[in-house]
Amino acid sequence: MPVKTIAWENNSLVILDQTLLPTEERYAVLETVEDVHRAILRLEVRGAPAIGAAAALGLYVAVQHGAFPTYDSLKNALRQAADFLASSRPTAVNLTWALERMTEVAEGMPGAEPEAVKRALLDEALAIMAEDREACRAIGRHGQGLLADGSRILTHCNAGGLATVDYGTALGVVYAALEAGKKIRVYADETRPLLQGARLTAWELQKSGVPVTLICDGMAAAVMARGLVDCVITGADRIAANGDTANKIGTYGLAVLAREHGLPFYVAAPLSSFDLGQPSGDKIPIEERDPDEVRLFRGVRTAPPGVDVFNPAFDLTPHRYVTAFVTERGIIRPPFAETLKGLSDR
Amino acid sequence: MPVKTIAWENNSLVILDQTLLPTEERYAVLETVEDVHRAILRLEVRGAPAIGAAAALGLYVAVQHGAFPTYDSLKNALRQAADFLASSRPTAVNLTWALERMTEVAEGMPGAEPEAVKRALLDEALAIMAEDREACRAIGRHGQGLLADGSRILTHCNAGGLATVDYGTALGVVYAALEAGKKIRVYADETRPLLQGARLTAWELQKSGVPVTLICDGMAAAVMARGLVDCVITGADRIAANGDTANKIGTYGLAVLAREHGLPFYVAAPLSSFDLGQPSGDKIPIEERDPDEVRLFRGVRTAPPGVDVFNPAFDLTPHRYVTAFVTERGIIRPPFAETLKGLSDR
Repeated sequence: MPVKTIAWENNSLVILDQTLLPTEERYAVLETVEDVHRAILRLEVRGAPAIGAAAALGLYVAVQHGAFPTYDSLKNALRQAADFLASSRPTAVNLTWALERMTEVAEGMPGAEPEAVKRALLDEALAIMAEDREACRAIGRHGQGLLADGSRILTHCNAGGLATVDYGTALGVVYAALEAGKKIRVYADETRPLLQGARLTAWELQKSGVPVTLICDGMAAAVMARGLVDCVITGADRIAANGDTANKIGTYGLAVLAREHGLPFYVAAPLSSFDLGQPSGDKIPIEERDPDEVRLFRGVRTAPPGVDVFNPAFDLTPHRYVTAFVTERGIIRPPFAETLKGLSDR
Repeated sequence: MPVKTIAWENNSLVILDQTLLPTEERYAVLETVEDVHRAILRLEVRGAPAIGAAAALGLYVAVQHGAFPTYDSLKNALRQAADFLASSRPTAVNLTWALERMTEVAEGMPGAEPEAVKRALLDEALAIMAEDREACRAIGRHGQGLLADGSRILTHCNAGGLATVDYGTALGVVYAALEAGKKIRVYADETRPLLQGARLTAWELQKSGVPVTLICDGMAAAVMARGLVDCVITGADRIAANGDTANKIGTYGLAVLAREHGLPFYVAAPLSSFDLGQPSGDKIPIEERDPDEVRLFRGVRTAPPGVDVFNPAFDLTPHRYVTAFVTERGIIRPPFAETLKGLSDR
């Protein structure tokens, strides 16, 4: 995956602004915590693991240039910034997971020199990024074992290098299979309303030379009925202790269709996307976004002005539709209430 | 339904150019058979019953102003025009049905005065239009009996007044329920790639004062899981003798999801959409359209240039997912191989 999604360069947080893809490949420096909040809210950086990494670095950015006379003043500033960043998007658990890891680092150094705490915070954020890179490669290694040579994979939204620090989760499995010498084709749902499949997944795969066929979301059932795909692999924004999975709107319908057509439905996600404190998916908050995401595309009207719109950004796939989770610790199969126990690194 | 979709006015075929909705309400006069062919191909007029009516009038337009010395010269011109119009779109059977009805009128008057044949052709085309109006109202009357007061209906694409001469099939049921004093809400799938749900159904219902909520196609499963809809009603482009139904891409997935959620899945269509000569859906031709329908929206790029696209315009819903057909002759329930027998008016 040759694209740099998030980087720490010249003491600055740099992200690829994904709202401009596929027409423009532009990097943005996020100089303040407000910049980071806005970039997450506006989906300039998106994808659960990438949001986690951006938030971790964002928390460091929040205090990087501040003059803090005492440990406590730094800790207060951090708490405020963490609450602010946590409010940017509700569904991906990686956001609060990363912020909690960062906050715990500071809280583990009571009374320390503010500059020493800052250095530890940067180290932790960079560690979160490095771990994400490694987790994606491990997910790829484990997941590619599920794929026969010649497999055709349906995916939804973007769970690729653009959704992580690099490499990807669902697409990490694809990249690893290709690296293992297997022939692979990807069918990519365009993923309305924001077209992350068309704008990001198709672009990322095309750039990497991976054969990809773009379809509209409503075509997935026909693609399955015609026998054009062998399995479905998606990412996840939050997975409950029983395996219920929140992911991009449209995932649940795909999971139902996969079962109807006898196709495996795999969810590829790092441990940081599991929220084992949630016994089931019922309480996972589902973000609803601006109706104009559905009524307009880049300023072009797609529907009558003012028409009522329901625009949930995520849906919930009950665990019974999930064939297996692909994690950095391996493949996890049902019964998930048993097999997920003790998995979290929290 | 206050919109005029197709009309015969001042000796001319007038259509509402649906490619411009919802931003512009512009009527076009189709002066030649080439105009009619292009209007059908470009979806300026679309929806199976509307295509049938436009083709019938289009066949008259093809010979309207011609000077034919003999019956045979007129008949040859008609045959040529009918073949040309039939080539515009392959899936909706109403197109060939209407052209055959028109051709049979001419063939039933061997040796007649060309002007007399022309008059009979216009009468037949106007009869087809009048019958469609009546059929839609009868579909509405029968179908509304299926809906309880307060029903929330999910529909796909546009099977409304804009898909017929007026009033509609699936939306005809909605209009009839409202006329019967029932409270109704419609959830409309936007229906990618050409957004007939967003551009046409939402516009038509909004204009008629019917409560409508627009969703993206991938949201239908979540809407069902949340208990927001009571049934699904769609139109059809072609129905085989066993009940297999070709309709707008995305319909099949909806039918699977409806069954998974225990919701009735109704198909509302006039007899002219049934093709009882086809024992099953396997041989129904499924149109594939320009990949740029998926890659661009009104000139705005939605995907990387040149990315491979699969763009079938229709899919096939196997009869086992259909709860009932709503026709002008009443509600037809399984086993369809029995109950559809002898239904056709052909």
